[in-house]
Amino acid sequence: MCVLGLGLIGGSVMRAAAAAGREVFGYNRSVEAVQAATFDGFDATENLDEALARAAASDALIVLAVPMPALGIMLDHIRGAAQNCPLTDVISVKGAVLREVHKYGLLEKFVGGHPMAGTAHSGWTAGRVDLFVGAPWVVSVDDHVDPQVWAQVMHLALDCHAVVVPARSDEHDAAAAAISHLPHLFAETIAEIAGEVPLAYALAAGSFRDGTRVAASAPDLVRAMCEANADQLLPTLERSIELLTRARDALAGTGTVAELVESGHAARMRYDSFSRPDIIATVIGDENWRDELAAAGRAGGVIRSALPVLGSRG
Amino acid sequence: MCVLGLGLIGGSVMRAAAAAGREVFGYNRSVEAVQAATFDGFDATENLDEALARAAASDALIVLAVPMPALGIMLDHIRGAAQNCPLTDVISVKGAVLREVHKYGLLEKFVGGHPMAGTAHSGWTAGRVDLFVGAPWVVSVDDHVDPQVWAQVMHLALDCHAVVVPARSDEHDAAAAAISHLPHLFAETIAEIAGEVPLAYALAAGSFRDGTRVAASAPDLVRAMCEANADQLLPTLERSIELLTRARDALAGTGTVAELVESGHAARMRYDSFSRPDIIATVIGDENWRDELAAAGRAGGVIRSALPVLGSRG
Repeated sequence: MCVLGLGLIGGSVMRAAAAAGREVFGYNRSVEAVQAATFDGFDATENLDEALARAAASDALIVLAVPMPALGIMLDHIRGAAQNCPLTDVISVKGAVLREVHKYGLLEKFVGGHPMAGTAHSGWTAGRVDLFVGAPWVVSVDDHVDPQVWAQVMHLALDCHAVVVPARSDEHDAAAAAISHLPHLFAETIAEIAGEVPLAYALAAGSFRDGTRVAASAPDLVRAMCEANADQLLPTLERSIELLTRARDALAGTGTVAELVESGHAARMRYDSFSRPDIIATVIGDENWRDELAAAGRAGGVIRSALPVLGSRG
Repeated sequence: MCVLGLGLIGGSVMRAAAAAGREVFGYNRSVEAVQAATFDGFDATENLDEALARAAASDALIVLAVPMPALGIMLDHIRGAAQNCPLTDVISVKGAVLREVHKYGLLEKFVGGHPMAGTAHSGWTAGRVDLFVGAPWVVSVDDHVDPQVWAQVMHLALDCHAVVVPARSDEHDAAAAAISHLPHLFAETIAEIAGEVPLAYALAAGSFRDGTRVAASAPDLVRAMCEANADQLLPTLERSIELLTRARDALAGTGTVAELVESGHAARMRYDSFSRPDIIATVIGDENWRDELAAAGRAGGVIRSALPVLGSRG
């Protein structure tokens, strides 16, 4: 397999895949990362054409692990040099990646992915062989996906000791808007408001520091994430404004915030008791397998050991 | 001194004050807490009249450490039995306490307080002698406060190894709305929205769990806190809706959330570099001492060792 981009995520995929016994080689634009990876005993180059020629020759699974703005250039090169290779990615916003892949005519052998793991650091040296252990790794079950490629991506995620969550790209992005992008905007809002209130910084303690920690993230990264997911973030943001406005009206009118506090608490309790059953009954490639997996993932199901593929042995 | 209410905060004040060598006795409504405190070697009773008679006889500092709903009953008894004792409290919303104290005609010898410490547990057994070590303990510098009583409350906080933050009650409450009550409502909102989005619970990981942890708090406590501070929470909530609506409009119109993300990030960076200088130059009781302390507290200043009092030795 071939990893394009050897930062935190790509570099960790390379380490974990190699540890699982896979033959893996990679490309990175910066010579420093390539040298560091080579020094650590990995097979890396800063020559993209060379990496792609090698991928094409061995029909390697290509893993796109570059930042969103570099995606188009990668896809353009892949279209020229390795268009028949199975293709996946580890980028956070799935709809935006899907649109780009479609634009470059590479949809047929593409199955999107998103390992939900990370640290506050970046770059090759931040990577870890165990970054994905136990983490959810979303593998997209969009209408177009090919069973064989899907199975390859599932195996990669399992080799990295992640648990596979099957999900449609649009549903993934809606969930990410609710659990990640909206919370980022809320943290920015709290930081901003605290900055406007005399004495707030003076009294702010641990809970404020923790609650606004993500506002300390690089603004460019937060923007990139939120803006690439604008389609899903917008209705989520609308809904939050609606709920907060209703709470404001209730507090102003009757002096109570009971509705929001009680429904929020009930939702948080449901989350605490949300179960994660194993998905075991689906055969990849069977009739309706995509819908079946999407429904199972939506209900909390995860794949912990490889599902069978229709027409394959074992 | 006399502590009314021997829960987490009151019980910790009793332990810390005793450890500092003070003579301290306390009252609690439930016989269980009184027995537990007595068993632990403290001087406690479930007879309120007895406790107040003793406080009146020794001119003890009375510390109100009961939940907000029980405050009126306590003040009514104090008015009858110990109206000349210096009085403070350790309840979180200062404006609401101030109004009640005023209503019962006890303002003259009252100085509000709020030690900003706590744990997830409650009751006598949850109390700890070191609960306040290094924590900010707000001591109110409202227009009416008496220098002698103020000094007594400052000494109590310092004896508990807290750092004293002088602040006006209204400013304290505005800050609490921004750094605590609004974040609570935001956490409820995120939990609620995640509960509405298929797949959100399935993908939610550590950051979601941490970010919505306060939504797991008992709804009654969250409501009590927010609703008692409605006057200050309302404009804060308004402001948050305004900022989020502006972000929504920008995202819908031009596809960017730059303004909110950049200003939030800048505010968070200012918080990280906010300094906490020692307040050393003020003499309690001097001309303008209240305004001087309020300004110093607003600027991040804290009292780490006792300030002198006008007309007192030492």
